[in-house]
Amino acid sequence: MLRATKPYHRLIRFNSTKYFSAEPKAPILATGAIPGPKSKQLNQELGQVYDNGATYFVADYFNSVGNYISDADGNKLLDVYCQISSIPLGYNNPKLIEAARSDEMVSSIVNRPALACFPQSNYKDILEQGLLAAAPPGMNKIWTSLSGSDANETAYKAAFMYQHSKLRKGEFTQEELSSVMENKAPGASEMVILSFEKSFHGRLFGSLSTTRSKAIHKLDIPAFPWPKAPFPKLKYPLNEFEAENRIEEEECLKELESIIENSSKQIAAVVVEPVQSEGGDNHASSFFFQGVRELTKKHGILLIVDEVQTGVGATGKFWAHQHWNLDSPPDMVTFSKKFQAAGFYFGNPDLQPKQPFRQFNTWCGDPSKAILARAIYKEIVESDLVNSTAKVGDYLFKGLQTIVAKTDKFTNLRGENFGTFIAWDCSSADVRAKVIQGCKDRGVNMGGCGDVAIRLRPTLLFEKKHADIFLNILEDVTLSS
Amino acid sequence: MLRATKPYHRLIRFNSTKYFSAEPKAPILATGAIPGPKSKQLNQELGQVYDNGATYFVADYFNSVGNYISDADGNKLLDVYCQISSIPLGYNNPKLIEAARSDEMVSSIVNRPALACFPQSNYKDILEQGLLAAAPPGMNKIWTSLSGSDANETAYKAAFMYQHSKLRKGEFTQEELSSVMENKAPGASEMVILSFEKSFHGRLFGSLSTTRSKAIHKLDIPAFPWPKAPFPKLKYPLNEFEAENRIEEEECLKELESIIENSSKQIAAVVVEPVQSEGGDNHASSFFFQGVRELTKKHGILLIVDEVQTGVGATGKFWAHQHWNLDSPPDMVTFSKKFQAAGFYFGNPDLQPKQPFRQFNTWCGDPSKAILARAIYKEIVESDLVNSTAKVGDYLFKGLQTIVAKTDKFTNLRGENFGTFIAWDCSSADVRAKVIQGCKDRGVNMGGCGDVAIRLRPTLLFEKKHADIFLNILEDVTLSS
Repeated sequence: MLRATKPYHRLIRFNSTKYFSAEPKAPILATGAIPGPKSKQLNQELGQVYDNGATYFVADYFNSVGNYISDADGNKLLDVYCQISSIPLGYNNPKLIEAARSDEMVSSIVNRPALACFPQSNYKDILEQGLLAAAPPGMNKIWTSLSGSDANETAYKAAFMYQHSKLRKGEFTQEELSSVMENKAPGASEMVILSFEKSFHGRLFGSLSTTRSKAIHKLDIPAFPWPKAPFPKLKYPLNEFEAENRIEEEECLKELESIIENSSKQIAAVVVEPVQSEGGDNHASSFFFQGVRELTKKHGILLIVDEVQTGVGATGKFWAHQHWNLDSPPDMVTFSKKFQAAGFYFGNPDLQPKQPFRQFNTWCGDPSKAILARAIYKEIVESDLVNSTAKVGDYLFKGLQTIVAKTDKFTNLRGENFGTFIAWDCSSADVRAKVIQGCKDRGVNMGGCGDVAIRLRPTLLFEKKHADIFLNILEDVTLSS
Repeated sequence: MLRATKPYHRLIRFNSTKYFSAEPKAPILATGAIPGPKSKQLNQELGQVYDNGATYFVADYFNSVGNYISDADGNKLLDVYCQISSIPLGYNNPKLIEAARSDEMVSSIVNRPALACFPQSNYKDILEQGLLAAAPPGMNKIWTSLSGSDANETAYKAAFMYQHSKLRKGEFTQEELSSVMENKAPGASEMVILSFEKSFHGRLFGSLSTTRSKAIHKLDIPAFPWPKAPFPKLKYPLNEFEAENRIEEEECLKELESIIENSSKQIAAVVVEPVQSEGGDNHASSFFFQGVRELTKKHGILLIVDEVQTGVGATGKFWAHQHWNLDSPPDMVTFSKKFQAAGFYFGNPDLQPKQPFRQFNTWCGDPSKAILARAIYKEIVESDLVNSTAKVGDYLFKGLQTIVAKTDKFTNLRGENFGTFIAWDCSSADVRAKVIQGCKDRGVNMGGCGDVAIRLRPTLLFEKKHADIFLNILEDVTLSS
């Protein structure tokens, strides 16, 4: 086995007290610009064997701590991007280290089960103490998978099987059994999943067919002929454009109903993100989502809420769709990212196929990730991190309002009362690139989305003191150039 | 945190010596029939929250060891199914426990990176010492993913992007950029992937479109209109049907070429398993696979070899396609299962898209699984497990020949000189069910595939002594009922 070298020892030394004191008081800049020379060299070497075209910098995770990510050159950046919104509790969190070192974790890693055939005796407990304890209101069942794409695709499969079994009288027909082997109807479904313009639901073939974010995500890949509906384009600040935005949302709902009524193919499910993240951090109001829920119910269509990026506390609720006050819950809610585990929740037992081996694959999830999710959930609850994220988010939003008021580079600040799930638009893609790079060189790691948006995705442990550092650097970078 | 209860302590005590001595000398039967009462009860409870329709029994992985899987009732079964062929080195392998306890592993679990944006500084080393050290001849690059389905789908995406970029003069056209957002050609590809009858390549929407194993795997799920070609149906024993089998394979190759020549859509890639596992453990000869390689080269089609189930040593070569002695290597080889990690290998740098963010997703693999794969690879090499699997496989095959000769329940014994990757057909599905259940009740956990086949998938640490136990029980069960 490889032996731990010096920096690894930090992991062993960490405990709850030392963890927080190990966070630097401010970003540490060891090289002039980021990526630094070591990061560049390591990335060039990696590129010999692995697609590294999208690399921002090479990270040193052993020396990252809390809200600070270390790069290979020893720069320590305040991270408000967090591995594309997937680090819930900071780097090297001691509670997660404890979970990772547990015998349960070790056993789950070395004895990975085919969960649907030989489930481990403690899997239900792990789920009930973690992922299921966190289930959205109205949901008490789960299917586990491996990524956001996988979560959405298994939810789509559940939707197709559900809709067909509702139509089917009795057993599969001979024609179904034979046509499906030719990839043809009636055995292969001609039903569709409807998604929204600018949505992102993943990059495998089914999920990519519902993704409408950017051409580069989709080019040259075959896609199912599935429909899309318009997503509201809101104007900001919201209080100034209340009437206009309402009309925009009403028109989108009208168009959605028209698409549903005129679809030549049955729509098995509508999938929607609470905030369209990759597509530009596009928000809609509760009114719109309530309308989507009503229309789907009225037309016998399942509603899948994709909380892969919005879930697990960052919006000031555990699940973003809890902001909507729906009369009846979504049919399925998918998750991944901050939970490290992935899958979907549901309440209606008919969403589980009657026959075995239909919703099935070798692993059906990964207990090691479910154990990690349990530790994440416990820490979120015990430290009341959803509420603290809501509070820090409000503080951050006000600070950003002040900056936006001082510059014509930024508009459309959004995400008020939505925790730290905040974004704004830049006046051009070029301005955005300069601001992001400028912040990076000053010690803040930040990410974009859509054509001109910057999105914030800090950890749930992001505090006012971090917000202050971030706001100062952002203001400096924005106003000084 | 949950504290380890009694059985967990075993994990800590294990070391290389104790590990092997901890294997029981023979199966231990604690209950009359399997599943036992505790297993049944736990499974019923699990079913309240999780689809448990396919459960065989509930396992106790803490008390499983080496080639023996323990169920919740304390039965210890000799496992020749191994989590659908995905346990390489037995349960609670001390070398893997050591890797799972390492600081590198702990850091990878708690600091899971978005690999394509912020790769960790040691990712190239982890790959080069593990997954890439194991790369098939002619391949020196890798893309990492999360499961077999995911591995195949990312390989398909690479194939589509490659073929389109070969046809494209210069940049994407406006028509491509706009049509793809409507899921339409020319931006969305109309090219196809060709697979073979009875093949299995996964269950997500793209991979499922190439899967042709069983209707129940595919029913009610939309599929791309992709073509299939016949796979040889060989007769056994091979030495008796040499001429007939050659004609069968020649006809399949002729039909494949005819499908290629008459396809109205360009075939981007052909995907093939060295042994069609889920579809019934169907073998073909090197002659057939050489022919497939020749035809694909001749017609500018990429060849993807799906080694998700056949890879990592069980066939007596590290990669099953090494049995074929190809003149030129496949274009991509996909892997998962026994490597715990997943992905595909390739050699041609053009299989990596020129633009970033095309072969891309949040995680792009999982370093914790790559670390595990490295430990698996090292142990396989250091203990010469591929050669020992070849030897044990020969011994096992001879023993099975003796049993098959004594009964009319079994035919078509196959997998000679193919390590422990051995299978045979039962005279009916009913006979198969009885034999598998009979063996389970006598302490052997075994799996089926296809309509009437039983497939063997023991660990790479399966020895002659295990083969003797297995053969005795199988013979008893088969001949006594």
